[in-house]
Amino acid sequence: MEMICIILVINLGSSTLKFNLFSNSENLCSICNGICECIGFEHGIVRYTYKGKSNEINVHLKNHKEAFAFIKKILFDEKNGPIKHYKDLEAIGHRVVHGGEYFPGPVLVDDNVIEKIKDLIPLAPIHNAVNLEGILDCQIEFPNIPQVAVFDTSFFYNLPEKVKNYPIPNDLSKKYRIRKYGFHGISHSWAYKRYKKIVQRKDCKLISCHLGSGSSVCAIKNGLPIDISMGLTPLGGLMMGTRSGSIDPSVVTYLMDKSGMSCQEMNELLNKHSGLLGISEFSGDVRKIMEKNDRKCVLALDMFIYRIVKYIGSYIASLNGVDSIIFTGGIGENVPYVRKKVCKNFEFLGVDIDENINNKTISGVERLISSEKSKVEICVIKSNEEFSIAELTVKTKRC
Amino acid sequence: MEMICIILVINLGSSTLKFNLFSNSENLCSICNGICECIGFEHGIVRYTYKGKSNEINVHLKNHKEAFAFIKKILFDEKNGPIKHYKDLEAIGHRVVHGGEYFPGPVLVDDNVIEKIKDLIPLAPIHNAVNLEGILDCQIEFPNIPQVAVFDTSFFYNLPEKVKNYPIPNDLSKKYRIRKYGFHGISHSWAYKRYKKIVQRKDCKLISCHLGSGSSVCAIKNGLPIDISMGLTPLGGLMMGTRSGSIDPSVVTYLMDKSGMSCQEMNELLNKHSGLLGISEFSGDVRKIMEKNDRKCVLALDMFIYRIVKYIGSYIASLNGVDSIIFTGGIGENVPYVRKKVCKNFEFLGVDIDENINNKTISGVERLISSEKSKVEICVIKSNEEFSIAELTVKTKRC
Repeated sequence: MEMICIILVINLGSSTLKFNLFSNSENLCSICNGICECIGFEHGIVRYTYKGKSNEINVHLKNHKEAFAFIKKILFDEKNGPIKHYKDLEAIGHRVVHGGEYFPGPVLVDDNVIEKIKDLIPLAPIHNAVNLEGILDCQIEFPNIPQVAVFDTSFFYNLPEKVKNYPIPNDLSKKYRIRKYGFHGISHSWAYKRYKKIVQRKDCKLISCHLGSGSSVCAIKNGLPIDISMGLTPLGGLMMGTRSGSIDPSVVTYLMDKSGMSCQEMNELLNKHSGLLGISEFSGDVRKIMEKNDRKCVLALDMFIYRIVKYIGSYIASLNGVDSIIFTGGIGENVPYVRKKVCKNFEFLGVDIDENINNKTISGVERLISSEKSKVEICVIKSNEEFSIAELTVKTKRC
Repeated sequence: MEMICIILVINLGSSTLKFNLFSNSENLCSICNGICECIGFEHGIVRYTYKGKSNEINVHLKNHKEAFAFIKKILFDEKNGPIKHYKDLEAIGHRVVHGGEYFPGPVLVDDNVIEKIKDLIPLAPIHNAVNLEGILDCQIEFPNIPQVAVFDTSFFYNLPEKVKNYPIPNDLSKKYRIRKYGFHGISHSWAYKRYKKIVQRKDCKLISCHLGSGSSVCAIKNGLPIDISMGLTPLGGLMMGTRSGSIDPSVVTYLMDKSGMSCQEMNELLNKHSGLLGISEFSGDVRKIMEKNDRKCVLALDMFIYRIVKYIGSYIASLNGVDSIIFTGGIGENVPYVRKKVCKNFEFLGVDIDENINNKTISGVERLISSEKSKVEICVIKSNEEFSIAELTVKTKRC
C-alpha cells in the first residue's frame, strides 16, 4: 500500500484557526483548507473547502482547543474525511509569530522549544500566547504527531547590526530584548524563492512589498534580507489597515501625556484604530476605501501609497540600486491602482509598467508587470505562507 | 550724519543666549557676536568677538533677563561698544522654534503674537517657553525697539496633506494639534537660497541635509519643501547626537510598560540619552566618536550614516529623482567621511564625489564636491541661521 504523507498547517489568530492540509507524495498539494471564525463567541462558524466543495457550519466553539477537536472530526471523518489513517498525518506545522533571538529557522517542537516560545510572550503578547496554546492543544488532540514551529521572524535573524539596533541606550535594549526583529519573513522569503523561478538572475537587489491588512517592505540582497520595515513588533514601518506604522516617537509620549492614555490604550490605538481606518474614518480595507473615495478616503490612500514609495526609495538606497520590485499580499496582488501609483514615483530609475498587464487581475498568477523597456523588473507574486510552512515542516521534520 | 541701522539677532537655549549684531548699510555684516553660557549657574561665562578680538568674562547670570542686561552693557559700552546711539538699533530678531499653524512666516511681535507663542508652549515646552521669555525680557531691556519672531517651522507651513498628517485617528490629531510641523526651516530655506546662487538651474529637485547635533533631511521641489524628517517635535526623523529619531512606536509603549518610566522620563531618554550617545556610550559628537573608534563608536556612526542614506533615498523617491544633494550644519560642512559614506550608496544614480575637493575642509566656503562626471550635484553649504534671521528681520520690520 502506498504511504500517504499528510501535513497539517495551522495559523492561529486570537479568535480564528486557519488550517490547510497538504498531501505530500511527489509534490505538496493542498487537499483541504478552511477556517474557524469567531472562536469564543456564540456565533462561531467553520468554513472549509474539500474536493472542490465549500462547506459552512455554524458552531459555538468555546476556545481553540474545541476548534482543534472540531476540525479533527472533519479531517478524520470515517466516510468522507481527507485523512484515512492516523499514521498518514506526518506532521503539523505552526506559524509562530515571534521567534526572538532563539530561532534562526523552523524547529521540531519539544519541551525546550515550548519554554522558549513562552519566554517570548512579553514581546508579542497576543500572538505568541495564542500560537503556544495551539501547539499545546495539538499535543493533546493529535498525540505523537511531530509538530514544527515556523517563525515569522527567522528570516531576519541575522539582520546587519546597524539595522537591527535601535538608537536607544544599549543597556535598555539588552535588558528588554529590544531590537528590530522583523515580521512577514515567511512571506518575503517565499516571494524571493518564487521570484528566482521566474527571473533568471544570479545576484540580485530586490525589494519585496507585502501589502495586506498588515504591510511591510523588505530589502533583499542575493537572497539575504538586509532591512525590513517592521520592527520590534508588527506595528513598525508602513501605514497599514489599522496600524500607524512608524511615527515620531514624541507623538506617542505627547499624546499619552495630554490624553492620559495608558501604555496599553496607546498601543491599542496605534494598532487597531489608526492607519487607513484612522484617516478614512470608514475602513481599514483599501478596496472599500477606493470605492467610497470621499476626501478622507482619498487622503488615507494617498498617505498609504506615499509611505510605500518612501520605504522602497530608502531600501533602494540601502541596496545602492535595485533590480526588481515584488508586490505580494492581498493588496499587492489584487489592486493594480496601488502598484501603478507606487511605480510612478520610480520613473527616474526607468521603471515602466505595462498598463494592460498590470490592470489584469489574475489571482494567483505570478507575472512580470513591467514593460520590456523597463530598467527595473516589477513582479506580482502570490503570497502562499501556508504552502511555505508545509514545505518547511516537511524539511524540518525529516532532518 | 549717516544713519547706521543695526540688527540684533537672538537665539536662546535653556541656559544659553547667543547673540549676533549685524550692521545693515548696504549689506548685512556681522560686527559683534557672542554667547552667554551656563545661565542660572554659578560658573556663568560670556564670550564674544568684536573687532577681531575675542573676549571672555566669568559672570554669574541668574537668568536670561540678567544675561540681556549684561550684553546690553557690552553692546552700548560708551567707549568701545558697537552701538553708539540707541536709535541705531533698528530691530531685534528672535529665533522661535515653534510657530505651529499660526505663523507661515516671520512676524513683528505684538501682544497677539505673544499670546500665540505662549499658546504653542505645550507643543515645544522647553523651546517656546524660553523663546517667549527672551522676547519679554527684550521688551524691558530694549524698550521701543521692534522685535521680529522668525520661526523654525514656517518653511513647512504648507507641507502636502499626505505628508503632514500622521496615520492616527483624525479627532485626536485635531484635538491635540498633532501634525508634522518640521524644524530646521531657517537652515533648509537658507541652504536652498545659497544653492540657487552657486548652481544655475530653473526647476530643481533638491535634498538638503542639515547634519549637526540636531539633524534633519528635507526634500525641496522648485523651492518648496515637500517633506522633512523632523515631525511633531525635533525628535523625529534621523538618529542624532542624543536623540533616537523615528522608531517603531511600540518600542516606546513597550519600554514604558516594562520599565515603569513616565512619559516625561521616556521623552527625556529619547531626546537626551539616545542616538549616537546611547549606542557609543561615549559621546553624542560625531567627531569624538570618530576619534575613539571602538566597536560601539563604529556601530553608532554606521547607524547614523545608514539612516541618513535611507532618508535621502526615501526623498529621492518622493521627488521622483534628484538634481542635487546639499550638506550643511556642523557635521555636514566639516566631516568629509560622513559625506563620502553617504554618497557611496547613491552610486546607482551616478553620484560621484571628487575626493580631493571633499577632503579639503574649507570652513565657510560653499562648493560643489561632486566630480564633473557626477549625474547629481553634491554641494556643501555653510549654515548661517543668524544671518538668515537678520535678513528676515529687516524685511519683516520694513514691510
